Amino acid sequence: MSGHVRLKIDGAVARVTLSNPAKFNAMSRAMWRELRQVFTALQQRTDVRAVLVAGEGGHFCAGGDIAEYSDFRFHPEGLRDFHENDVWGGLSSMLACDLPIVAQIEGNCMGAGVEIASCCDIRVAGQGARFGAPIAKLGFPMAPREAELVAREVGLATARQMLLEAAVLDAPTMLARGFLQTVLHDAEVPAGALQRAERMTRLAPLAARLNKQVLRALAGGQGAEALLPTAYDYADSPEHREGIAAFLAKRPPHF
Amino acid sequence: MSGHVRLKIDGAVARVTLSNPAKFNAMSRAMWRELRQVFTALQQRTDVRAVLVAGEGGHFCAGGDIAEYSDFRFHPEGLRDFHENDVWGGLSSMLACDLPIVAQIEGNCMGAGVEIASCCDIRVAGQGARFGAPIAKLGFPMAPREAELVAREVGLATARQMLLEAAVLDAPTMLARGFLQTVLHDAEVPAGALQRAERMTRLAPLAARLNKQVLRALAGGQGAEALLPTAYDYADSPEHREGIAAFLAKRPPHF
Amino acid sequence: MSGHVRLKIDGAVARVTLSNPAKFNAMSRAMWRELRQVFTALQQRTDVRAVLVAGEGGHFCAGGDIAEYSDFRFHPEGLRDFHENDVWGGLSSMLACDLPIVAQIEGNCMGAGVEIASCCDIRVAGQGARFGAPIAKLGFPMAPREAELVAREVGLATARQMLLEAAVLDAPTMLARGFLQTVLHDAEVPAGALQRAERMTRLAPLAARLNKQVLRALAGGQGAEALLPTAYDYADSPEHREGIAAFLAKRPPHF
Repeated sequence: MSGHVRLKIDGAVARVTLSNPAKFNAMSRAMWRELRQVFTALQQRTDVRAVLVAGEGGHFCAGGDIAEYSDFRFHPEGLRDFHENDVWGGLSSMLACDLPIVAQIEGNCMGAGVEIASCCDIRVAGQGARFGAPIAKLGFPMAPREAELVAREVGLATARQMLLEAAVLDAPTMLARGFLQTVLHDAEVPAGALQRAERMTRLAPLAARLNKQVLRALAGGQGAEALLPTAYDYADSPEHREGIAAFLAKRPPHF
Repeated sequence: MSGHVRLKIDGAVARVTLSNPAKFNAMSRAMWRELRQVFTALQQRTDVRAVLVAGEGGHFCAGGDIAEYSDFRFHPEGLRDFHENDVWGGLSSMLACDLPIVAQIEGNCMGAGVEIASCCDIRVAGQGARFGAPIAKLGFPMAPREAELVAREVGLATARQMLLEAAVLDAPTMLARGFLQTVLHDAEVPAGALQRAERMTRLAPLAARLNKQVLRALAGGQGAEALLPTAYDYADSPEHREGIAAFLAKRPPHF
Repeated sequence: MSGHVRLKIDGAVARVTLSNPAKFNAMSRAMWRELRQVFTALQQRTDVRAVLVAGEGGHFCAGGDIAEYSDFRFHPEGLRDFHENDVWGGLSSMLACDLPIVAQIEGNCMGAGVEIASCCDIRVAGQGARFGAPIAKLGFPMAPREAELVAREVGLATARQMLLEAAVLDAPTMLARGFLQTVLHDAEVPAGALQRAERMTRLAPLAARLNKQVLRALAGGQGAEALLPTAYDYADSPEHREGIAAFLAKRPPHF
């Protein structure tokens, strides 16, 4: 097995690094399991206010580690275990994270890379980044939960192009399609992504958690109705009082 | 209490004006209640064929009237009553309106402004308009029904950016994201919005009502199936006969 | 009755031609029924790997054949039969097709044309193509299933503009709105669309069918969960083994 997913906490920002640089950070089974561990740990931390996800060495993630595939993909149980437990275990732990997540996307963002980026809230990419899921060339379709996640974030038309044409799209196109929030010069991507994560650490953290919970429910097809019973429990929180007091006093809030 | 929502009927166009100009038309509780009254009244009128929603004095709406917030926001019942009855009362009366609604968006369109614009069918904005919902700076999240409405209209990625980054976006960006149908020079916005409302008054009014009912059901997650029992009741209507007769006779229809 | 829908198989590409050129390929009732026959037949063929849908003579499809409308539209049963059986029969047979479908869109793409294009996976248009559904001028609304299909593919904001303003939009706008995947010079549209269809014939055909089934389920509001029981049955397929073997051997796959 090769590759690692590393976690480093720097003040209120947690940095998650996909690292398998000889393969442009292709995800091995071990890395999917580490991704889950990292995000399960982050969900427990109250000192962290934003998460940055990046790849090692100028690429985000080139897909899955195909060298491992012959070991388990040709039997339905092995294939199901890989997609439902390893891959979805990692992705669902990202989706379940209540902290805002910024994707710092450089170079290749393919297959598993698009899936991981689709679990991030804010996506910052370099002009040279490339996006796609050309698995039709590998003879297999996208697993249902992964296709649902990607189609929701890139849109149905782009998902069809990625899956049925094996199309690889550039960063300006993915900006125009609404997947990316900004495209920067390649050299400016690390600083630009960090700046956005740091900006979020200065905003109200309970509001961020509640907003993430609502947006996650809506993205998952759950209606607003189900969220109403607890939606106003924050009324008496110090953070709520501080935000409004600071505004009325014309001073910056301290969250 | 400050501010008013005014209604003025001019031929087949109803003009709804958000007016609290000292606060860039920030919505007071009284204004949310007036918004509901205005749209409940409009829904009953058969002489009106299109609605134009605008703000007073070069701004659309800067958000909620924060000066009132200390009175009721710090207890769950008061907070719930505000969001579920006052705010949602106003917004849901707009969503329930069967008349086509044009938003004339100038200057600030923030928080409540984005919510009100999200209830309009056609959104015309000036180049200088600014969009966002930076309530994380005020220490609170967006209420679930309001987040559902906004996320549906601006898209999930933009909703995340508005709520988690407290980002303020300009009109060209909101055009590219698909929220706005057109962006005009600031000085041309009132005439451009009125022109679109007037154009709609010359189209078939029953078709507009039926189209609004179908699009509203689909936006709310209701499938087309539920609409089929009454979908073809218009078959024998004079409007339907006139439209097709006029086309075949190569003359303009008179609806 | 006038017009035909023709099917021609050329290698692994099936070409479906909407032909009623005196009326810019407006769809007659007979053509809707032929559309269904053509796609029901295509769904059975294993030699075909991609479908190209185009109009005759420089236009895609200008709408419905209004000359026929007086015969059946003014009674609810006749109107229902037309929309639910003829129109939806044709459109639903396209949606049910497991083969990737490319739309070659030239000239007018209005009403029925937008509906047919909305059933295609990849949409290639010329710079001079025009899109809309100005049926409010004809005095009638869009039928619910058709509105659901179109609103999903063009987006709610564009659907409102097409239906409530009777707006006609150009190809660059529809590219920006995400409906089109590419816009070409008008003269290059046939070659560009064919090139994309041919590219798809060289990719894994079983993967294409499974991807289409998943994307169709998601587009129709069915969650990924329902697809899991059979999602990994392809594990032991020759195509899956060939794709991964070819990648590891650094040679092109042969599907």
